[in-house]
Amino acid sequence: VGAIIDELAAAVGADNVRTGEHIKDDVGHDEALTATPVLPIAVVMPSSAAEAAAVLEVCSTAGVPVTARGSGSGMSGACIPVEGGIVVSFERMNQILEIDADNQLAVVQPGVQLDQLEAALAPLGLAYPVYPGEYSATLGGNIATNAGGMRAVKHGVTRHHVLGLEAALPTGEVIRTGGRIVKASTGYDLTQLIIGSEGTLALVTEATLRLHPRLAHQATVLAPFTAVGEIVSAIPDIVRSGVGPVILEYIDFLTMSAITGRVGLDLGIPEDIKTNAMAYLVVMLENAQGGRLDEDVERLGIMLAELGALDVYVLPPGAAVSLIEAREQAFWVAKANGADDIVDVVVPRAALPAFMARVQELADTHQSFIVGCGHAGDGNVHLSVFQPEPDRRQAVVRALLESGIALGGAISGEHGIGTEKRKAFLDLEDPMKIVLMRRIKEAFDPEGILNPGVMF
Amino acid sequence: VGAIIDELAAAVGADNVRTGEHIKDDVGHDEALTATPVLPIAVVMPSSAAEAAAVLEVCSTAGVPVTARGSGSGMSGACIPVEGGIVVSFERMNQILEIDADNQLAVVQPGVQLDQLEAALAPLGLAYPVYPGEYSATLGGNIATNAGGMRAVKHGVTRHHVLGLEAALPTGEVIRTGGRIVKASTGYDLTQLIIGSEGTLALVTEATLRLHPRLAHQATVLAPFTAVGEIVSAIPDIVRSGVGPVILEYIDFLTMSAITGRVGLDLGIPEDIKTNAMAYLVVMLENAQGGRLDEDVERLGIMLAELGALDVYVLPPGAAVSLIEAREQAFWVAKANGADDIVDVVVPRAALPAFMARVQELADTHQSFIVGCGHAGDGNVHLSVFQPEPDRRQAVVRALLESGIALGGAISGEHGIGTEKRKAFLDLEDPMKIVLMRRIKEAFDPEGILNPGVMF
Repeated sequence: VGAIIDELAAAVGADNVRTGEHIKDDVGHDEALTATPVLPIAVVMPSSAAEAAAVLEVCSTAGVPVTARGSGSGMSGACIPVEGGIVVSFERMNQILEIDADNQLAVVQPGVQLDQLEAALAPLGLAYPVYPGEYSATLGGNIATNAGGMRAVKHGVTRHHVLGLEAALPTGEVIRTGGRIVKASTGYDLTQLIIGSEGTLALVTEATLRLHPRLAHQATVLAPFTAVGEIVSAIPDIVRSGVGPVILEYIDFLTMSAITGRVGLDLGIPEDIKTNAMAYLVVMLENAQGGRLDEDVERLGIMLAELGALDVYVLPPGAAVSLIEAREQAFWVAKANGADDIVDVVVPRAALPAFMARVQELADTHQSFIVGCGHAGDGNVHLSVFQPEPDRRQAVVRALLESGIALGGAISGEHGIGTEKRKAFLDLEDPMKIVLMRRIKEAFDPEGILNPGVMF
Repeated sequence: VGAIIDELAAAVGADNVRTGEHIKDDVGHDEALTATPVLPIAVVMPSSAAEAAAVLEVCSTAGVPVTARGSGSGMSGACIPVEGGIVVSFERMNQILEIDADNQLAVVQPGVQLDQLEAALAPLGLAYPVYPGEYSATLGGNIATNAGGMRAVKHGVTRHHVLGLEAALPTGEVIRTGGRIVKASTGYDLTQLIIGSEGTLALVTEATLRLHPRLAHQATVLAPFTAVGEIVSAIPDIVRSGVGPVILEYIDFLTMSAITGRVGLDLGIPEDIKTNAMAYLVVMLENAQGGRLDEDVERLGIMLAELGALDVYVLPPGAAVSLIEAREQAFWVAKANGADDIVDVVVPRAALPAFMARVQELADTHQSFIVGCGHAGDGNVHLSVFQPEPDRRQAVVRALLESGIALGGAISGEHGIGTEKRKAFLDLEDPMKIVLMRRIKEAFDPEGILNPGVMF
């Protein structure tokens, strides 16, 4: 181990290698509720692609596992190091290198946080629209998991906003993929392949992100319904209407009560409505022009009433911001309340009613408690599973994942496979696709040093 | 050869294998101006993924090259067969299997043509927004080249609209990637990897396409400028304004004269303007609501005047449709006029002025004539190169491609590499990326039977 540490120190400078007691416990875990923390033999902090590549070369030669780390806000265990391995932390590569208004793009290092990018873009009238709900998350982490979030229903997910990458390969080279261009048909799309690969193919050392004009006006509409099933049944009509919501979320009444209660947020809903509201739909619209927004809000309100909403509230701006922020904290509320696991199955939008019905059956069958909220417009639900007994928990989670797949969905809409969904992934995915993915992994990482145990 | 033909006949039925004089000459070429036609030993017409897989298994075992073919409207030679190889034609797999309005998607076979899909979607108020300009093109071909076209500036390219694929692998298996879901973080994105792979990784046998609500109102604005450079300099401002054009094209005056002259289209531009107009900007806006469209058109008109347009014309609906159709025929006009090659370099949007200036320098240096039009909003220009002498033609084309790369662009924005840009691709691309792409190719196609000579 000592020799390796020396080589790593030669690659990045001795000050940028932490070992022993200098390694903080925090590096040993992410936000997956079920994962076991592991501490690395070293935390290495490169300052450039060349240094990252040098680190990878050392580790490839020595067969030392490498796990990339941003803010550690992942949900699947993908940035938890391997016993005997190192962590490559991007805390020193945290600069916004350029904001190019003419080409509507930003060039960032992987350690840049979402809130940092947002603060830089807002004054310029530009926006990077991917908000996975945790503003301390890094762009590197977002790219690794192909992060989504509430705004994906309008803007798509991370892979729709990354135009190009710089990446250090486990074999020691640095490549650049894509670029400051919005399209290309020039060979296989390595950018898209690396996005969502959870640190198993390469270390992303720079990303070129597509930006959008920032729209000046937002309105948030809250509509209580008597059942989750009614909300999810209404989703296809709302999407089809072309009103183009930027956020289209459902929140069940228990989750709503927990997230608003935590911050003391009173949305002003009358008691008689509240009593009957088993779930809430939250719709945010935005427009460059206030008049158009007002018209769209009115149209949406009529539509929601026709679709069975108990009432329709246009939230005052302050309450709207508070509600969205409270929704973003849903995971922390679930964690504080003792949730034992979180799943983020995605199904075809129109299959949500069937899926949500199945969720309740499974909760009953497995004597578990399952609540949640989710990106209803994308068919992507986040379920908090309360089942302290490990075997039972695994059984109910597995059944949830299988139900999603049976309806034409996938195990994870945005959290990724990591270590925690790996068994289900390998068991339930088409074996031939796993064979192809393993071969792709080997094409990039012949020594298998990048995040072993993640995905495969 | 006879034994192979028998095996292919066993796979798809003897009636669905054409050999000898039954093979039409048309199968030997696509629309690349520089390619040499080659006839296959057989044209095989599977009716299902299973049959396609059986064909691939026969060919893998026998080492027979396989080239997939849709309508043959490609521009890079990628569907021209290899000497001694077969063509897999998808003419029998030409059904729209489902239009799912609730999930806003269509499931199609690869032989479905764009005009066929459009005819099926229009009455339902839905749209598949990728229009590469040739309506007889098939979805299979569009997926193979990651086709773009005029509407990409708003809607993106093919890869942004394909949610899932069914594909037959050269090793004989059939896989399904993605699905009826708009997002997933569940393993490497094989859908994105296969899109744009030009028939070198797998045969696409079914695709799930994302649809959009069809917007009722369109307006087309034509603005003459005194120079191409002025138009391309104006592009970033128009994109940044948020007016959200669905089409944003430049057409130089020679191309405009040729394409309108061919169909006898008179756009009613006064003679004194025409004399000074060295290039035209075409902007199409669309909106679900007529009133909003009118407002946006007015805003755009003011902006264009400020950006230096000689005048701004809102075309009557008939003339607008005719102009867009004429623009779509630009390739045929160039071909009829004797163009020797077409390139479709893409550069950062803001680098277009520098690129267009370089194009004129290169035309002068190489004593060639270069005219064109292009997807200015995407930085993607289509240049017709007139230079009958082969060595000189190759030199000027190579210089054009190198200039695009030097400005941060790529060899092809949407036509692909095929056989015709292969040498430039292999010479100019980072060798390490070529190594990775070759390994990926080998992961899918260990015997190397799919489109050998294309891309690599």
